[in-house]
Amino acid sequence: MALKSFVEVSADSHFPLENLPFGVFRPKPAASTAAADPLPPRPGVAIGDFVLDLSAVASAGLFDGPILKNSQCFFQTSLNMFVEMGRPAWREARTTIQKLLSADEPTLRDNDSLRDEALLPMIEVQMLLPTVIGDYTDFFSCLHHHKNCLTIFGEMENGIPPNWENWFHLPMGYHGRASTVVISGTDIIRPRGQGHPRGNSPPYFGPTHKLDFELEMAAIVGPGNELGKPVDINQAADHIFGLVLMNDWSARDMIAWEYVPLGPFLGKSFSTTVSPWIVTLDALEPFACDAPEQDPESFGCFTELSRNGQKPLTLTNGSERKFLEDGDEVILTACCKGKGYNVGFGTCTGKVLPATP
Amino acid sequence: MALKSFVEVSADSHFPLENLPFGVFRPKPAASTAAADPLPPRPGVAIGDFVLDLSAVASAGLFDGPILKNSQCFFQTSLNMFVEMGRPAWREARTTIQKLLSADEPTLRDNDSLRDEALLPMIEVQMLLPTVIGDYTDFFSCLHHHKNCLTIFGEMENGIPPNWENWFHLPMGYHGRASTVVISGTDIIRPRGQGHPRGNSPPYFGPTHKLDFELEMAAIVGPGNELGKPVDINQAADHIFGLVLMNDWSARDMIAWEYVPLGPFLGKSFSTTVSPWIVTLDALEPFACDAPEQDPESFGCFTELSRNGQKPLTLTNGSERKFLEDGDEVILTACCKGKGYNVGFGTCTGKVLPATP
Repeated sequence: MALKSFVEVSADSHFPLENLPFGVFRPKPAASTAAADPLPPRPGVAIGDFVLDLSAVASAGLFDGPILKNSQCFFQTSLNMFVEMGRPAWREARTTIQKLLSADEPTLRDNDSLRDEALLPMIEVQMLLPTVIGDYTDFFSCLHHHKNCLTIFGEMENGIPPNWENWFHLPMGYHGRASTVVISGTDIIRPRGQGHPRGNSPPYFGPTHKLDFELEMAAIVGPGNELGKPVDINQAADHIFGLVLMNDWSARDMIAWEYVPLGPFLGKSFSTTVSPWIVTLDALEPFACDAPEQDPESFGCFTELSRNGQKPLTLTNGSERKFLEDGDEVILTACCKGKGYNVGFGTCTGKVLPATP
Repeated sequence: MALKSFVEVSADSHFPLENLPFGVFRPKPAASTAAADPLPPRPGVAIGDFVLDLSAVASAGLFDGPILKNSQCFFQTSLNMFVEMGRPAWREARTTIQKLLSADEPTLRDNDSLRDEALLPMIEVQMLLPTVIGDYTDFFSCLHHHKNCLTIFGEMENGIPPNWENWFHLPMGYHGRASTVVISGTDIIRPRGQGHPRGNSPPYFGPTHKLDFELEMAAIVGPGNELGKPVDINQAADHIFGLVLMNDWSARDMIAWEYVPLGPFLGKSFSTTVSPWIVTLDALEPFACDAPEQDPESFGCFTELSRNGQKPLTLTNGSERKFLEDGDEVILTACCKGKGYNVGFGTCTGKVLPATP
C-alpha cells in the first residue's frame, strides 16, 4: 500500500512519499524579473510534481530533531554539508520530511503561506548539480560490458590479446574528470580529437566519428574516510548517500587510439551527465535483491548494440544508428516498481550538438 | 641584479622579491591558546623566511588597483576566487605586492603595527592546500619515462608489446584522484592492495612491495574554459596560474596488475603530494628556455633508477634502496638560478608510514 501525501502524487510518478530524493534547485525568475540576479541555489526534495524547499522548512524551524535542529546544512548552495553529516542525519531528515508531507499531518498542509513558500511546482525550478564533486571514479560492474569492450577495442583495433583475469580480483576502475560532470539537460557538444584508422595510416583530428552513450548508475559518496584508513565493507552503506542515473558519454574512436597504456582520457572527459535527484539507499532498501546472473549479455551503449558500428540498429521511428548523430537526444530513466507506487530516478537527458567550428 | 626588499632575504632563499609565490596558510595557535579553534586559513605570499598575509594587506586597503580594489578574493580560505580572476588580476597583485615589500617603499616598512600583523615568520604558520582542486590530470612529458615504464611493465610483466606511437601525437594522460592531493609534509601511509607475481600464481593482497616516488611539476590551471570550447594554444599561459612541485606516489606492483585496460588507479590514488607555494608564470618567465633534448635519459623515480628493483641504488649514507621503505622521507626541491637570486619552489616532502594493520 502506498503512503499518502497531501501533495497530489500521480500513480506513475517517480517521486511519491516513499522516495523523497534530494537535489539542489534554483527557482526560475518570474518573467517580470528576468533581468534580476538569479535566486540562490538551495536543497530540495521531490514530491510528485513539486519540490519541497528545505531552506524554507529549516527557516520555519520544522527540522526539530537532535541532529538537524541547529544545522546550517539546508542553507547551503550544495548538499555537501548534509551528505558529510552521515546516515543518522539523512534518516532524521527523511523521517521529518515524510511526516511533514503526509496527508494526516497539518503543520505544512494547513499553513497556506508556508506551503506556498515551501512547495514549488517542479516546472518552475531549475535543477543544478546536487553536490560539489571532489572526485569521480568509474567502474566496470558488468563482466560482459568489460569483455565486449576489450574484445571490440583490443582484438579488433590494437592486436592486444583480451585479458580480463584481473576483473575477477579487482574493481576495474579509473578516474573520470570531476570538473566536467554536468546536470541532466546540459547540451553535449560533439568533441574534437584524434582517432586512428586501421593499418599504417596516420591519426586524424576532427569531430569524433563514434559518439556513444553509456547507461550507468552513480553513487554519491560521503562522508569520506580518513586518508589511508580503509572503509570496512560492512560499513559501506554508511558512506553512500544515494544513487543517480549517469550517462558516461564516450568518443569511441578517440578512446581506441589513446587508451594504451594510461586508460580512457580525452574520449571520456568532455562531459558526463547525471540526473538531478539523489535517491537514498533508505528509499531503495525495500527493493534490494540478489544481483542478476551476468549471463546472457545486456547492452548499455552503441558500441555493444551496433558491434562498434558493424551492425546498425533500427530505432522505433525507423531510422538507423551506429553511433549518435548531431541533434540526437539521449534520455535515460529507471525506477523500482512497488505495490501501487514507484521509487524512480526521473530522467537523465542530453542532446548532441555539432562540434564547434 | 637582485631586487631589494626591506624584509631580509638570504642569498640562497627561494623566495626573494622576484618570486612572490602564492599559498594558503593558517597561523599556528600560540601555545597559550592551543585549545582554541584554529585560526581561519587565508592567502599569503612568501618573502624570505616570512609570509605576507594578503587578508591583512587587503583589510588595510593596500590593494588599490582597479581589479582588486573591492575584491573579496583575499578574504577566502582558498586561492580559487583569485585564480579564477585571470592574469590581469594576478599581475596587478604581483605589482602591488612587489612595490609594498620593496626596500624604498615606506607604506608597510614604516608602519610597525601593520607590519607585525601582516608579516608572519614562516615557522609560525601551517601551510594548507592552496586551492580546492576540481580535477587533477597527469601527463607524460618525458618520452623516456614513458618508454621506460612501458618497457618495464609491458614487456617484463604482461607480455604486451610496447606501443608508444600515440605518444608522438597525443598528450598521454589520465585523471588522478583529485580528493587525495595533499599538502607537503603530510605522512604517506603505505597502501594495501593487490599485486600479481609472475607466472600462474594467484594475486596477493597486502602492503605494496614497490612503493615509489615520482618527481613532477604540476600546473595550477584557471580560469577554466567554457564546456566544449577549446583553449587556443596561444592563450594557454592565460589559463595557467603557476607551478608547484608534485610527488606522484606510486605502488608499482599494484599498477602492474591493475593498469590493463583502464590505466593506473588504486596504485596511484592513495596520495599525491604538492608543494605549498605556487610560483607564477610571471616569476618564471625570465628563465624560459628551450626544452632539453629528450636524450640521454633522465630518471625521476625508483622504477627507473633501480630498473624495477633489479639494480639496487646506493644512497649517499651507504644504504641501498630498490623502492621506498617505511620511515623513508622523500624531499623534492627545485629552483631557477638568477644573477644574485633564486626563484624557487621550496620543498615538497612526505614520510612513508607503515601500512595500517
